[in-house]
Amino acid sequence: MSPKITTELLKQLRQVMKNPRYVQEPVQAYIVPSGDAHQSEYIAPCDCRRAFISGFDGSAGTAIVTEQHAAMWTDGRYFLQAAHQMDNNWTLMKMGLKDTPTQEDWLVSVLPEGSKVGVDPFIIPADQWKRMSKALRSAGHDLVPVKENLIDTIWTDCPQRPCKPLIMLDLSYTGVSWRDKITALRSKMAERKVMWFVVTALDEVAWLFNLRGSDVEYNPVFFAYAVIGMNTIRLFIDGDRMMDPAVREHLQLDSTLEPEFKIQVMPYGSILSELQAVGAGLSPKEKVWLSDKASYALTEAIPKAYRYLTPYTPICIAKAVKNASETEGMRRAHIKDAVALCELFNWLEKEVPKGTVTEIIAADKAEEFRSQQKDFVELSFATISSTGPNGAIIHYKPVPETNRTLSVNEIYLLDSGAQYKDGTTDVTRTMHFGTPSAYEKECFTYVLKGHIAVSAAIFPNGTKGHLLDSFARSALWDCGLDYLHGTGHGVGSFLNVHEGPCGISYKTFADEPLEAGMIVSDEPGYYEDGSFGIRIENVVLVIPAETKYNFKNRGSLTFEPLTLVPIQTKMIDVNLLTQKECNWVNDYHQKCREVVGAELERQGRHEALRWLIRETEPLVRVQ
Amino acid sequence: MSPKITTELLKQLRQVMKNPRYVQEPVQAYIVPSGDAHQSEYIAPCDCRRAFISGFDGSAGTAIVTEQHAAMWTDGRYFLQAAHQMDNNWTLMKMGLKDTPTQEDWLVSVLPEGSKVGVDPFIIPADQWKRMSKALRSAGHDLVPVKENLIDTIWTDCPQRPCKPLIMLDLSYTGVSWRDKITALRSKMAERKVMWFVVTALDEVAWLFNLRGSDVEYNPVFFAYAVIGMNTIRLFIDGDRMMDPAVREHLQLDSTLEPEFKIQVMPYGSILSELQAVGAGLSPKEKVWLSDKASYALTEAIPKAYRYLTPYTPICIAKAVKNASETEGMRRAHIKDAVALCELFNWLEKEVPKGTVTEIIAADKAEEFRSQQKDFVELSFATISSTGPNGAIIHYKPVPETNRTLSVNEIYLLDSGAQYKDGTTDVTRTMHFGTPSAYEKECFTYVLKGHIAVSAAIFPNGTKGHLLDSFARSALWDCGLDYLHGTGHGVGSFLNVHEGPCGISYKTFADEPLEAGMIVSDEPGYYEDGSFGIRIENVVLVIPAETKYNFKNRGSLTFEPLTLVPIQTKMIDVNLLTQKECNWVNDYHQKCREVVGAELERQGRHEALRWLIRETEPLVRVQ
Repeated sequence: MSPKITTELLKQLRQVMKNPRYVQEPVQAYIVPSGDAHQSEYIAPCDCRRAFISGFDGSAGTAIVTEQHAAMWTDGRYFLQAAHQMDNNWTLMKMGLKDTPTQEDWLVSVLPEGSKVGVDPFIIPADQWKRMSKALRSAGHDLVPVKENLIDTIWTDCPQRPCKPLIMLDLSYTGVSWRDKITALRSKMAERKVMWFVVTALDEVAWLFNLRGSDVEYNPVFFAYAVIGMNTIRLFIDGDRMMDPAVREHLQLDSTLEPEFKIQVMPYGSILSELQAVGAGLSPKEKVWLSDKASYALTEAIPKAYRYLTPYTPICIAKAVKNASETEGMRRAHIKDAVALCELFNWLEKEVPKGTVTEIIAADKAEEFRSQQKDFVELSFATISSTGPNGAIIHYKPVPETNRTLSVNEIYLLDSGAQYKDGTTDVTRTMHFGTPSAYEKECFTYVLKGHIAVSAAIFPNGTKGHLLDSFARSALWDCGLDYLHGTGHGVGSFLNVHEGPCGISYKTFADEPLEAGMIVSDEPGYYEDGSFGIRIENVVLVIPAETKYNFKNRGSLTFEPLTLVPIQTKMIDVNLLTQKECNWVNDYHQKCREVVGAELERQGRHEALRWLIRETEPLVRVQ
Repeated sequence: MSPKITTELLKQLRQVMKNPRYVQEPVQAYIVPSGDAHQSEYIAPCDCRRAFISGFDGSAGTAIVTEQHAAMWTDGRYFLQAAHQMDNNWTLMKMGLKDTPTQEDWLVSVLPEGSKVGVDPFIIPADQWKRMSKALRSAGHDLVPVKENLIDTIWTDCPQRPCKPLIMLDLSYTGVSWRDKITALRSKMAERKVMWFVVTALDEVAWLFNLRGSDVEYNPVFFAYAVIGMNTIRLFIDGDRMMDPAVREHLQLDSTLEPEFKIQVMPYGSILSELQAVGAGLSPKEKVWLSDKASYALTEAIPKAYRYLTPYTPICIAKAVKNASETEGMRRAHIKDAVALCELFNWLEKEVPKGTVTEIIAADKAEEFRSQQKDFVELSFATISSTGPNGAIIHYKPVPETNRTLSVNEIYLLDSGAQYKDGTTDVTRTMHFGTPSAYEKECFTYVLKGHIAVSAAIFPNGTKGHLLDSFARSALWDCGLDYLHGTGHGVGSFLNVHEGPCGISYKTFADEPLEAGMIVSDEPGYYEDGSFGIRIENVVLVIPAETKYNFKNRGSLTFEPLTLVPIQTKMIDVNLLTQKECNWVNDYHQKCREVVGAELERQGRHEALRWLIRETEPLVRVQ
């Protein structure tokens, strides 16, 4: 990787920072955050402004350019990558290290008195604006919204905003019609006494209307906003997508409908002015509901006294609790996904010893097997295919410069998943194609014990996921080991592979309680820098648990694995397992054999079936 | 309990709420919080203003009186008690129930437009003021500070503020001189670039100066504030306590000292004016450090731009990490405490079958045995002596109306502790003096498994206590059981039995990481309304743990029980324990026998020694 030369670009940016065509008053600093106008985790190429101006294209980072300096804040995952991709114009700000200043502190230290700091008000979430604005103001500076994005003014070959065709999901996939979803949303609005709800997150728009898109890689979403009133529905979306008769039919655009279900389609770019009009027309006590992560621009469109902000929207919460149709879809998707992985691992077992399989080839092969499955749409994230020391890089993605050949001497870690029309998958398996060392087996077994401790946990209704995080670490902690990431994230139903509001992590306290129907990942790991990485990940469904007693009639919950891919028994030190853990592995493998075996049989994949049967032989624990 | 008749008092209060002698403008509502000016958990009789005005004397509650209404907010522990103690003038607001309004929402719903809500600015913490003030302002009302406490104006027989003699602790108890503590504090101040530190919590003043008092029952503290500058020390304290030559010697008041260690003694009541003078004299960039829980009055004395507020003060954090002298003192205190409890349980075993021992008699007997021990000062909290259904009332305290006789048919729960000059104890044991049922044993054993899971947990340095909370619940959760309180709290060293900043609870996320030398309680339980309560509590010391590996060189921690009182083996269903848990119990009992046995022997308490030996016989697990 050679760094991007940014001298000329920075010069141009500094010019527009003073150009009255774009800024009311010159700004002495300009902030370029990572996100898009929907605060998406994955973004479209046209939104990769921070990568454009700096060269650094990791998933997290904030650039700030002043008249004299250019600085980039990113976290430990990206210190090396950012250092390689950026030229000498840039200072790397290593977040999480003690001596690294915050963006605010740094700005205060470098700016001349009474400076203006500009930012695109559509890109910065309202809560971040508030924090930064306050810090700057208390030091005598001002955070100011710059309406036109200054990067876009100098990005001459900026790609177009994608505007791809839509996919309609019928009731057999969604279980609930968009009309019923709107009705349910309106009843939540009535409960909280709000008159309007602004849908800003792309996956929330997609879920609400039972539509999917492909404007953003890996995430089946499309660029749109919606504003739902008690009697109106406005959908802000561009392109001729609304000319598609099937879409018109799905949204009943040409039917005679009760007025409260009539969708007004409006241009994507008109959201701000329309919302300002809503804001201007509010009577006292008419509140507008927004996520507190919505952009500053949209939040400001509503006068402060009329805003009702919550960290999680009612759509986010409803979306997280999967109904029977969605759950069945997720089950089907996971069975197909398991078929593809049985094929892959069987193939790898044969090919790896030949020394011809690289990380990239293995990732491609995984995609090939997945794409053979019914209703396959695309991958759900960039495949992490990593062997040996690359496995210890938690967010690794093989590229030609790092591409390693799989061998019988190294551990191989594959974290991958796909979007099927009936569901989203995300699975990690760690394999050895030769003979693992006792130490590798020991570490793998601790990780497995943690995986089981979460998967088999029984906990009261109303428990938040973060309370389960330590269960995943206990066996590692006992030996002085640990892993530096959370244990699980919410998973969408043919939607984003990472979604809120639930998860399993020591890092958050603001997650919503787990309830039956929610789907999360369970993925403890162990990583040894420069040598190997281990992770065991299943997607699991929250289900009611039967318990001997029932304190305060609260009811209990547990997890059912949706992922049904064998866990390599060769890597397990059986004597480190309790009998209960051993039974868990055997029951799990029995289920993989039955359910996935039947599908392999049906698809006539006999060699992979033989592999599955071999890999699901019961463990025997010597007492 | 008959309710307190408050008609006349409320009439008087409503008069002073309009009396220009006390209020600049009439207030339409007056808030009476629970606390004192130091935000203490336990308060002196003169500070029990909420109990005076309402009759309700539970430990938590906030009264609000308007021209028409009087309402009391309290939590589930006190619904019954509050309902009994208050007359018809009062509306009970049951916190935690879905339909109960917050204080702010209720005020907004009952107040006429543009009302003034008064509160004593010394009693309300700054963070609460901010929240309430904001909510009221957004509804068009004003929260206003009422300088003179309005309850005090009508409380004609209000007791005097206590002003008892001080106890000096020498180096053998504290390990560090007050001068060295001041020096360490100043270096923390220099790190954060603050020039002044205001000590508002009573236990922080006591700890800093190596002094103790007895102004508040159970808490060995005295009414005082301190303001520490980089070159000055001001101690605000009343009475002739500073005339005691020993105190003068301890504080070196009459010695020729470096000026930065010269203590200026000032009247307790002058804190506000002195702090205002400090606030008025600040140069730019001179910050003043306060707890964000300090009173609104003191916080306001410092102009906003000069305030440096943190949830935990450097004293709070330093105080939590006990040094070798303090740890040794805590060990000694716990051995003496165990001697007293061995005597008590031996006595109870003989006396309970006679049917003459009530909860109050048992509690008194426990105090009697404790008071025979060296350096005993007082109890560390009101003894919870509860049998049968009373055991299910988590914060029970026996009074004549509820006093039950101990019997061989009911479980007995004793949660008690003492202040010794060398340390503070807090221990709960649950006993059966007859034959427990299989179900009682089952529940007890789950609680014990939870207790062991925390006590034996190994976790990385830097782990926050709340991450361990679920370990205590896992065995209960497996069977659908749980308990509705946290698992542990910090414990002071001859100081408050509850102290921050660490603890073990699902309720908080803001606790500071555990580190070696911190002392917390480990007290899971199980409670069955109307029938019994079980709790097993030890005070445990955080110590370094030896582990097989050492990930990222972080080091690991675990706990060492300081409490050394047998856990009744009769209550244990051994077959529900793993071999590891069984070994833990046997090792623990072995240590009780050795350490406490030696002390019983030394004190010539042979009968109690025989009891101890009998109660510490090893468990045998049938495989």
